[in-house]
Amino acid sequence: MNDNKPTVKVIPLGGLEQIGMNITAIEYEDTIVVVDCGIAFPEDDMLGIDLVVPDVTYLTDNIEKVKGFVITHGHEDHIGALPYILPKIPVPVYATRLTIGLIENKFKEFEIPKKVKLKTVVYGQSVVFGKIRVEFIRTNHSIADAAALAIHTPAGVIVHTGDFKIDYTPVYGDTIDLARFAELGKKGVLALICDSTNVMRPGFTMSEKTVGKTFDSLFAEHSSRRIIVATFSSNVDRVQQIINSAEKFGRKVVIEGRSMVNVIKTASELGYLKFNENTIIPIENIKSYPEEKTVIITTGSQGESMAALSRIAGNIHKKISLQPGDVVIFSSSPIPGNEKSISKVINELSMKGAKVIYQDAHVSGHACQEEIKLLYTLTKPRYAIPVHGEYRHLQTHSELYQSLGMSKENVFILRSGNVLEMNDEHAAITHNVTAGSLFVDGLGVGDVGNVVLRDRHMLSENGLIVVAMSIESETGLVVSGPDIITRGFVYVRESEVLLAELAEVCNKTLDYCIENQLSDWGKIKNRFKDDLSDYLWKKMRRSPMILPIIMEV
Amino acid sequence: MNDNKPTVKVIPLGGLEQIGMNITAIEYEDTIVVVDCGIAFPEDDMLGIDLVVPDVTYLTDNIEKVKGFVITHGHEDHIGALPYILPKIPVPVYATRLTIGLIENKFKEFEIPKKVKLKTVVYGQSVVFGKIRVEFIRTNHSIADAAALAIHTPAGVIVHTGDFKIDYTPVYGDTIDLARFAELGKKGVLALICDSTNVMRPGFTMSEKTVGKTFDSLFAEHSSRRIIVATFSSNVDRVQQIINSAEKFGRKVVIEGRSMVNVIKTASELGYLKFNENTIIPIENIKSYPEEKTVIITTGSQGESMAALSRIAGNIHKKISLQPGDVVIFSSSPIPGNEKSISKVINELSMKGAKVIYQDAHVSGHACQEEIKLLYTLTKPRYAIPVHGEYRHLQTHSELYQSLGMSKENVFILRSGNVLEMNDEHAAITHNVTAGSLFVDGLGVGDVGNVVLRDRHMLSENGLIVVAMSIESETGLVVSGPDIITRGFVYVRESEVLLAELAEVCNKTLDYCIENQLSDWGKIKNRFKDDLSDYLWKKMRRSPMILPIIMEV
Repeated sequence: MNDNKPTVKVIPLGGLEQIGMNITAIEYEDTIVVVDCGIAFPEDDMLGIDLVVPDVTYLTDNIEKVKGFVITHGHEDHIGALPYILPKIPVPVYATRLTIGLIENKFKEFEIPKKVKLKTVVYGQSVVFGKIRVEFIRTNHSIADAAALAIHTPAGVIVHTGDFKIDYTPVYGDTIDLARFAELGKKGVLALICDSTNVMRPGFTMSEKTVGKTFDSLFAEHSSRRIIVATFSSNVDRVQQIINSAEKFGRKVVIEGRSMVNVIKTASELGYLKFNENTIIPIENIKSYPEEKTVIITTGSQGESMAALSRIAGNIHKKISLQPGDVVIFSSSPIPGNEKSISKVINELSMKGAKVIYQDAHVSGHACQEEIKLLYTLTKPRYAIPVHGEYRHLQTHSELYQSLGMSKENVFILRSGNVLEMNDEHAAITHNVTAGSLFVDGLGVGDVGNVVLRDRHMLSENGLIVVAMSIESETGLVVSGPDIITRGFVYVRESEVLLAELAEVCNKTLDYCIENQLSDWGKIKNRFKDDLSDYLWKKMRRSPMILPIIMEV
Repeated sequence: MNDNKPTVKVIPLGGLEQIGMNITAIEYEDTIVVVDCGIAFPEDDMLGIDLVVPDVTYLTDNIEKVKGFVITHGHEDHIGALPYILPKIPVPVYATRLTIGLIENKFKEFEIPKKVKLKTVVYGQSVVFGKIRVEFIRTNHSIADAAALAIHTPAGVIVHTGDFKIDYTPVYGDTIDLARFAELGKKGVLALICDSTNVMRPGFTMSEKTVGKTFDSLFAEHSSRRIIVATFSSNVDRVQQIINSAEKFGRKVVIEGRSMVNVIKTASELGYLKFNENTIIPIENIKSYPEEKTVIITTGSQGESMAALSRIAGNIHKKISLQPGDVVIFSSSPIPGNEKSISKVINELSMKGAKVIYQDAHVSGHACQEEIKLLYTLTKPRYAIPVHGEYRHLQTHSELYQSLGMSKENVFILRSGNVLEMNDEHAAITHNVTAGSLFVDGLGVGDVGNVVLRDRHMLSENGLIVVAMSIESETGLVVSGPDIITRGFVYVRESEVLLAELAEVCNKTLDYCIENQLSDWGKIKNRFKDDLSDYLWKKMRRSPMILPIIMEV
């Protein structure tokens, strides 16, 4: 930056490249505060990967500056990476009550350094980290206790919306604190970091409460049948409304699916969920009630193969067996990429005679275009930083912003590692820092990378041929083999001809190596690889991985 | 069947389990006629599989009965498997002109027995196969020359819609021959085999011609920019309309993408496409024209990674480089499962500065609910056989049929291999015949099955560990190894500790085998597998494939 005014840096360490892996460093002089710490789920080409977590090298390299995490809400894409990151960066974590409750849940499963403190804040409260002060502002979202952040720095105020919508009739708590946004706008906001998830959708997102009415009419319509509702385990307000309808229609409620049981337990303990003592019953007791007097609320609305709903659909659930006539309501919309898995579950449910309802029983937790415009109009930021979405969403967000009469030069679509330096005169991406993704596979974090994934991909497409032989060290003669073993290639037992042909190729290669007195094992191995690859491509148009093994005896 | 009246059999050999693999045998006494012969594209879990073709064992077992194929239209899911099936069942193929042209195209790439004859029929014409007579009836679809079939048998008339919509203003040719359907209905239709693709959608599918108007306004709006339109290569009418708009606005047209070039060449030669001599230019000449005076029509609207549009988006197309300001129109809708690939392409195009339009430039080629109802009302079939769709579509189709006042007992949702026997008194699924899918991988058909896929899946998730050793045959002593080689597992070079630990596990196993005098190689191998698996699961929660190799020297 050319001027001498102080600047604040905004550095996303994840997000655009890995949707869900939300983590942003806000840096002013010797202070870094980190907003959110989410995980992403693996893309289709990340074979065998369980989760994706951010590479926080920039934070560990500047560990003395990092003062704390501030978390906007309790969804996995905002809290999920904490157990992987906090051991490396043991600083306090600040969030509202339910969010802290959900983070504490995670701490039961993982080993987190004891010195990490979880600190509960209330809306309106500020936390001071050196010269940075972070204020928590009430918003609405598909989970209670969601917050936006006003990050006050000597260079100006950055407002981060977190995930938000505007709900004038929320199920739990109050409407987003629009007045505070207006107040901040009046005083001057340097930048608005704003949710883009629904920026493609015109209009306004409906209130969560409208779903309650839908449940009431679905429960009235299907009073003689058992009802199963699948929804997101973290959507406490949704569960509340299903419970409300259940109580209205005299049904008992079973909560099923590990993650949902956990979240609901935490939410009830903290008072975010209200119901009569006897409404929720243990799954074991469900048989004591007539089917039409029960509701099962379950995970699996995205067709996840191991979730409760998929197990019910596949007839492999231990405690619930689907009956013809059961009504299954998907209270969710498909997350892009899950469409086929969801269809599969719907088909399985339909084949077993269930009535499946997968429309109209859901509203989004994210702001549509008019809500986003309202937030810009209230906060009047000098700069816009669209976040939470694919590039096309951020691009559309930029256009929406410009449609409000703002200049394109003041919108910044940031990639992971971009360092945006700003004050009220200038803003520019000045340089890049290390940022990216680490793969979690089993208990390993970061020990699987692109080379390993490339091998997995090759193995998955065409399988493997191992050529093993023993060579006598003194003479250099092959004393055993070459033996051929295949996996994932073709049914070799039924293709003895093919196996014989491959053996012939190997023997020819061996002859060539002997004639040409090749003694370098690397060269011999490459020769086998090349000859077998050529042969298989010409004959079958296939490229299995070929793994020559030479044993010295 | 209990009565002595003659019956006709309807036997789907593909379809419900593998969407797209449309093939149905119609059998009366000693005559079988086969309707369509399509391929399916592999599901996500069919690793490395290129295509899926039907298992036609039932037809080859009854080869003397099979008199011919009748094909409804020229889409891959109706003609694609012919090259794989005709060599086994070399009987004549009957279809309308464009359909035959597209099948002939395939014959250039494959070796088809010379005795197979391709025979062109016209709408209204009938082909006689023994006691079965098949009449071709004009319909509308997203490809010209689509036909429904009235299959006349002594047991009654079966009407097969093929893929259809009702288009009162088609781009090429005339409206579906509703009068003939009515006439057949008046005389009595035994069964209607009816397209279910759009059965979830209320209302009526818009005319293809409406898309032409959209193109006109998009071309008018973007007169200063180059336009790229991605659509289905087989949608000749769509290409016609893009060409019409191009001519209206003085643009030259480039056709790009191998499959599109092939289809358009065939369609032009047969007169299904009309344009001025100079409108279409070779791709090499595009640089001779101002960008805003060109249109590129291309494949890749489904985000297929090797298609022209993906190569353009990824900057690896040899002849077309995307310019900021280019307008890219997706004239298509996502086929379920392709949403993420399409998003990826849209994001790449947007990042390079293209304006991407992916709404409103497409209409479906399939009938919606009101059209389906119209066809039932005209044909008044005794039985309904919904086809073309997942189970949930066929189920909804059944409900739609019942909403017309028909009985549930008269709807048959058939699975592959079901034999439905019908006459005007009874209909029932009486038994099952062999039917299913064969996987095409490279040049192999059917040599990859579930065991191979299971191995590929295991390799793709966790990779491979090979443990190789040489054992002296006379003494039974291990003279070399155990050596450990991994692929797709973890970065072993960076995990020397892990490799050392695995070696220790192997040495312990070896000691155990020696102490216990294990000499059976199978048992030794299993011991290595078990010990390594246990160790890796406990330590890392991973399950790579473990492949012990013992060489005898």
